[in-house]
Amino acid sequence: MSETNKQIIVTELPDGHLEERHFALKEVPIPEAGDGEVLTRTLLLSLDAANRAWMQGATYTAPVLAGDIMHGMTISQVVESKDPAFAPGDIVECQSGWQEYASLPPKAMAKLEVRGPLSQHMSILGITGLTAYFGLLEVGAPKEGETLVVSAAAGAVGNVVGQIGKIKGCRVVGIAGTDEKCEWLRELGFDAAINYKREDLAQGLRAACPDGIDVYFDNVAGDTLQAALLQMRLHGRIVCCGAVSQYDKAERAPSPMGLPGLLIVRRLTMQGFIVMDHYDRRQEAERELLQWVQEGHIQYRLDIVDGLKQAPRALIGVLYGDNTGKRMIRVDPDS
Amino acid sequence: MSETNKQIIVTELPDGHLEERHFALKEVPIPEAGDGEVLTRTLLLSLDAANRAWMQGATYTAPVLAGDIMHGMTISQVVESKDPAFAPGDIVECQSGWQEYASLPPKAMAKLEVRGPLSQHMSILGITGLTAYFGLLEVGAPKEGETLVVSAAAGAVGNVVGQIGKIKGCRVVGIAGTDEKCEWLRELGFDAAINYKREDLAQGLRAACPDGIDVYFDNVAGDTLQAALLQMRLHGRIVCCGAVSQYDKAERAPSPMGLPGLLIVRRLTMQGFIVMDHYDRRQEAERELLQWVQEGHIQYRLDIVDGLKQAPRALIGVLYGDNTGKRMIRVDPDS
Repeated sequence: MSETNKQIIVTELPDGHLEERHFALKEVPIPEAGDGEVLTRTLLLSLDAANRAWMQGATYTAPVLAGDIMHGMTISQVVESKDPAFAPGDIVECQSGWQEYASLPPKAMAKLEVRGPLSQHMSILGITGLTAYFGLLEVGAPKEGETLVVSAAAGAVGNVVGQIGKIKGCRVVGIAGTDEKCEWLRELGFDAAINYKREDLAQGLRAACPDGIDVYFDNVAGDTLQAALLQMRLHGRIVCCGAVSQYDKAERAPSPMGLPGLLIVRRLTMQGFIVMDHYDRRQEAERELLQWVQEGHIQYRLDIVDGLKQAPRALIGVLYGDNTGKRMIRVDPDS
Repeated sequence: MSETNKQIIVTELPDGHLEERHFALKEVPIPEAGDGEVLTRTLLLSLDAANRAWMQGATYTAPVLAGDIMHGMTISQVVESKDPAFAPGDIVECQSGWQEYASLPPKAMAKLEVRGPLSQHMSILGITGLTAYFGLLEVGAPKEGETLVVSAAAGAVGNVVGQIGKIKGCRVVGIAGTDEKCEWLRELGFDAAINYKREDLAQGLRAACPDGIDVYFDNVAGDTLQAALLQMRLHGRIVCCGAVSQYDKAERAPSPMGLPGLLIVRRLTMQGFIVMDHYDRRQEAERELLQWVQEGHIQYRLDIVDGLKQAPRALIGVLYGDNTGKRMIRVDPDS
């Protein structure tokens, strides 16, 4: 256990691409639990493309400001508690951010009923798996025999979306940025995978989805959304989950062309969602996801990076698509 | 009864604004009913902004091509029938286009059970009322107490949308282009009406919807959609019904800014629809609409223009917002 609380501070908000120089390591004394608060030690820190979006201003959560401890979702262990609902040793989900210790109010954390490796709770049973689950099943609502396309398909959410799509009887097409990722998607059971860096995406989608796309699960926005939109079938649904192509730059790309005309002519739905809106059904979703994992219908891949100090570089890598599967930082070497 | 069949032909597709010079009157002999077909005489011709969209290329219906008889929905009377399901005198809905007589296959027409003036079947009980009904209730799904905004609110669809919104307990705000139209909307029970030609729309929407918009029923697209999008509330729904601002020009305006980002952050849904997709429930909708009319909850206004020859000018007027309520051509002076 370290003697100090290491933190990673955002020294400056990026004006263009995020770089390591925008972060600085800081060491401060380990805090005590504040009045009515709970002192936690960070075990795992989630790295998500959305973290970069939080640096762009107001979203669905507090924006990251210069001087802030970088924000992030964590799985942590209770060290000291001044709230009767939590006891030392409890494992909790919280938003401690990029630091080793945090004193937080109890409403900012949820106790985790641990059912296997913690990394599983930060991936398939955590935000990643739940985002795929609710986004696909509640928002996309695919029917058996329909064609599902997912972008950033080898990413943390995308590969799970595709695997759930296969469970539901869809024809599944993934879009990813390397041949290795595409190969992995085919191993997972995807019917086709398009390497958008090597082939023309519009052409690839036309070839892989000759009858059009029924459900497009969009993690990317920008040109990828544009290409998918033009290939949508009557009554198709676009699940707007993320916009990773737009996060790491100062200027947003223009919206895709043809809106709202295409939506009308083809009776399409575009719907944005945030996983937390569906948490009333979280337990049910976790149970089903766990069962699919246990039965071998879903495989998940972890990309665990050791050490809080690696977080800036590892997050930047997520923005460039370096990861395959869910990337996280093991902050505590024993976790 | 005329001795010839007067038709209005599209001589040339417009490259910019639609003008009367793009049409020409033609007189041809009255056809006989073709084999297995039904000869109809046009009574009423519907004029809809969508007619202009059909000149822009493929939509949800056959595009209008140079040389075509201009396309349009009609209410017609059967003159001669070579199909046992139709008899002379029957009143039918069909797509005869801009002409006095047409021989059509029976599958291109639907018998009308006349329940009052025919003009009612071309307005509140026709496409107009049904578009408002299904678009608002099925796609927008407003809840009591929510804020509904509708554009082109004094148009054929818009005013009905607003009145149904009031029946369902919404706060209703209309956007229209003259003070007279806004005054009429307030008479109909709209809570507020914004003359977008006289005041800044974004500011007007913020003032009229301080807590944001729950349902935006869009007939207009372009700048109006942009302004509404920015004022949408969490979990809001945008009903994409029409895009009249985009029909009468050669170049489409860019899509509204901020897509798909705004959809995600605010968990919005944008959904396009076409009324025909809901026709399995048409009878139920007509019953309810008629009841609302009979009980005084819905008033409707007609804008009937006499004479087929007037159709070009009258359609151009629809594109400029000249009409208040549903505009149609009385082709047969006795109808």
